[in-house]
Amino acid sequence: MERTLIGELGKHVGETVSISGWVDVRRDQGKMVFFDFRDRSGFVQGVVLPGSSAMGAAKDIRNEYVVRVKGVVNKRPEKNAQAERRNGDIELEIKQIEVLAEAEPLPFDMSLDGFNLDLATQLDHRALVLRHPRVQAIFKVQNVIIDSFRQFMKSQGFFEFQAPIITPSVAEGGAEVFEMNYFDKKAYLTQSPQLYKQIVMTAFERVFSVNKIFRAEPSATTRHLTEVVSLDAEFGFIESWEDVRDMSEETVRWILHKVQRQCTEELALLGATLPTMIEKTPSLSLTEAQEKIFAKTSRDIRGEKDLNPEDERTLCEIIKEETDSDFVYVYGYPTRAKPFYVYPNPEHPEFNEGMDLLCRGVEWLSGGRRINNYAQLITHVKEWGMDSAKISGFLEAFKYGAPPEGGFALGAERMTMQILGLKNIREASMFPRDLNRIDTLLSETQDGHNITEN
Amino acid sequence: MERTLIGELGKHVGETVSISGWVDVRRDQGKMVFFDFRDRSGFVQGVVLPGSSAMGAAKDIRNEYVVRVKGVVNKRPEKNAQAERRNGDIELEIKQIEVLAEAEPLPFDMSLDGFNLDLATQLDHRALVLRHPRVQAIFKVQNVIIDSFRQFMKSQGFFEFQAPIITPSVAEGGAEVFEMNYFDKKAYLTQSPQLYKQIVMTAFERVFSVNKIFRAEPSATTRHLTEVVSLDAEFGFIESWEDVRDMSEETVRWILHKVQRQCTEELALLGATLPTMIEKTPSLSLTEAQEKIFAKTSRDIRGEKDLNPEDERTLCEIIKEETDSDFVYVYGYPTRAKPFYVYPNPEHPEFNEGMDLLCRGVEWLSGGRRINNYAQLITHVKEWGMDSAKISGFLEAFKYGAPPEGGFALGAERMTMQILGLKNIREASMFPRDLNRIDTLLSETQDGHNITEN
Repeated sequence: MERTLIGELGKHVGETVSISGWVDVRRDQGKMVFFDFRDRSGFVQGVVLPGSSAMGAAKDIRNEYVVRVKGVVNKRPEKNAQAERRNGDIELEIKQIEVLAEAEPLPFDMSLDGFNLDLATQLDHRALVLRHPRVQAIFKVQNVIIDSFRQFMKSQGFFEFQAPIITPSVAEGGAEVFEMNYFDKKAYLTQSPQLYKQIVMTAFERVFSVNKIFRAEPSATTRHLTEVVSLDAEFGFIESWEDVRDMSEETVRWILHKVQRQCTEELALLGATLPTMIEKTPSLSLTEAQEKIFAKTSRDIRGEKDLNPEDERTLCEIIKEETDSDFVYVYGYPTRAKPFYVYPNPEHPEFNEGMDLLCRGVEWLSGGRRINNYAQLITHVKEWGMDSAKISGFLEAFKYGAPPEGGFALGAERMTMQILGLKNIREASMFPRDLNRIDTLLSETQDGHNITEN
Repeated sequence: MERTLIGELGKHVGETVSISGWVDVRRDQGKMVFFDFRDRSGFVQGVVLPGSSAMGAAKDIRNEYVVRVKGVVNKRPEKNAQAERRNGDIELEIKQIEVLAEAEPLPFDMSLDGFNLDLATQLDHRALVLRHPRVQAIFKVQNVIIDSFRQFMKSQGFFEFQAPIITPSVAEGGAEVFEMNYFDKKAYLTQSPQLYKQIVMTAFERVFSVNKIFRAEPSATTRHLTEVVSLDAEFGFIESWEDVRDMSEETVRWILHKVQRQCTEELALLGATLPTMIEKTPSLSLTEAQEKIFAKTSRDIRGEKDLNPEDERTLCEIIKEETDSDFVYVYGYPTRAKPFYVYPNPEHPEFNEGMDLLCRGVEWLSGGRRINNYAQLITHVKEWGMDSAKISGFLEAFKYGAPPEGGFALGAERMTMQILGLKNIREASMFPRDLNRIDTLLSETQDGHNITEN
């Protein structure tokens, strides 16, 4: 008999169907046994009535058993219907249960309300915990974030490219970059597709990528992972850095809109409220932001090169109070405090046209206008003390004609964490990597075994 | 004045417009100067007429200059129209040219017909070469391959997840795996998301991922890169390995269909003909394939554990002759010659239910049914001499109930190469990494500089 997805059962009232899935919960009431079954499309309650030939099997089955169930879809009596639940108005009268796979007794409570594990235990049992609806909700939201980024970029004529992971370059001073053995040489894991997206922009004009980046962050904070998904965009023929800001704002607005529309159930389950993006997000220069913070708190940070985490929180609070916006752009950082490629303000070259988007006290997005003039780039490369031979491919892109351009980058895990109000970014990564853990705690790991497809 | 995209000019005949783009070609005919301009949307011819105030600027401009051009869109006289080219029926009468960025003289001919570089030179000048239409066509096709994979998977209820790059495990014997320094420990770059996709399948039922995988392939062949994009799928509640085969066949069919429909110009430009997939791709067991090759060529490979590249070519030729299919599935490999997770045929456990899809003599796809029974998995882990503690997360997924399942994987670069008939897989990667090269030749590279966004 053909399998019917649980989410489709409402269309089959009165019919005999076959479903396949997991036993989410089993409630043995002696004469009758109730089940909640789960597949990728939803949940449904099933019941084995007294005297049913399925009773024998029903008695042996435990939570998380994988089963194939034959039964009749019945409307529930009005008084038993649960209107707020999908399939809450139907019930499967079980005629036959076939066990496809057994499950050992669970090590902890996986019920919707009983699930209450500390993060370390959750990560120690990631495989099992990924089955919990609250955990699944996080990754469904993350999926929508990434997908809608891709969708918006395409709608604006951006071309997706695959940025490389293995790079020949190393970060300044070598800190925070992972080194790898590349045959008998050294190579490094990418910290950003920055120079690659600028190169590809000079060929495809508008480009984006969804790719992993890596930071050898030596501290185990709640905000940092060593491996994250970066959403990157870069585009040419801008008139000013404001074009980059506006494109990034509309990108974030689109993502929020899609999450709101497509993740209603997930947001409710996680008790999350989306941040407010007003019609035009406020933009402040770093200097203006510092003045504002000083005026409000008497904390004098004027002249500092950047905002620290406390400043970011304070600024967001002020802006929220003044405008109701949860977002604020800060631009105009000291030129020499930022990478060589950031475009200096032509009138005040000591400040640049880089920008950050803050939300609820945390940076969500970085970007800005870049230098596209080859001679100016070469000057910066020298002033920053860099070896031009090491970025020859990048420089070539600009040597042969590159338009005024800019771009931005968002971290998918950080955005997921922030949108959902998660306390730790590890919750926003299926398999989070940090100083202490790659799947299992690192003190336990040693050489493993071949785990490839071929 | 608002920018008009070149691809939209046909809608503005008789109007004055402003376009922005690159000078693709400049042809100076003395009294008149002709240009081909290029932006992300297409090409158009422009002309500076005798006596135009734009003549001064037109004389200084070279190929690849970035310009903003104001002009009038004119219909070309019938006799000058080029019907087969987009915008071949219009011409921009140039009134004003503004140079946005200069370009140095090009190091080689970048014209459509004059472009003829060996691969090493192409890779030495990747930034510039990416602007050539034939090179762009390759990555537009690759984009459609990846996008349509994603699209088909979603249409079948598959959930996209982000597989990790950094892993705690190492390949058998440690060959072909890249080792990295992970703080004071060792970690490895993933060779496949195999175990992760199986884990996530037990939570989301149908899953896919688009992710980088790595092989420390110590030889520089035309078919291997060290970093490639893997298209991976895994799904539960199959009845048999044939369900996996059929899903993979329909995936490839969909991709070919989309490439055919969306890449007409690119396929023509590259002179590529898509392989023929007949209504039902032939499937042969390894034993049957070996018998067929023996019968045809008298080369007796019966009893070998696998097909070698010559066998694969011969088999594809035989199948093409017999059925017109460019594709053929081979299944039923010796169980002990494959990874521990592959499902053994219950009736002939010495052969398994793994499979490969060959096309035009080369493997495109691997997959098959996996073991979902926990006790059977544990037995295999022991028989394969593996340490179960090293894959504890994977085993946990199956300990708590996993459905009968299988999956498959495709390499995006290899598929691009094969579809387009490219001679070297390096052409199918924007920034190919191999034994000798990471952007530049490896003997040249040393420590670089900070190239990150922040």
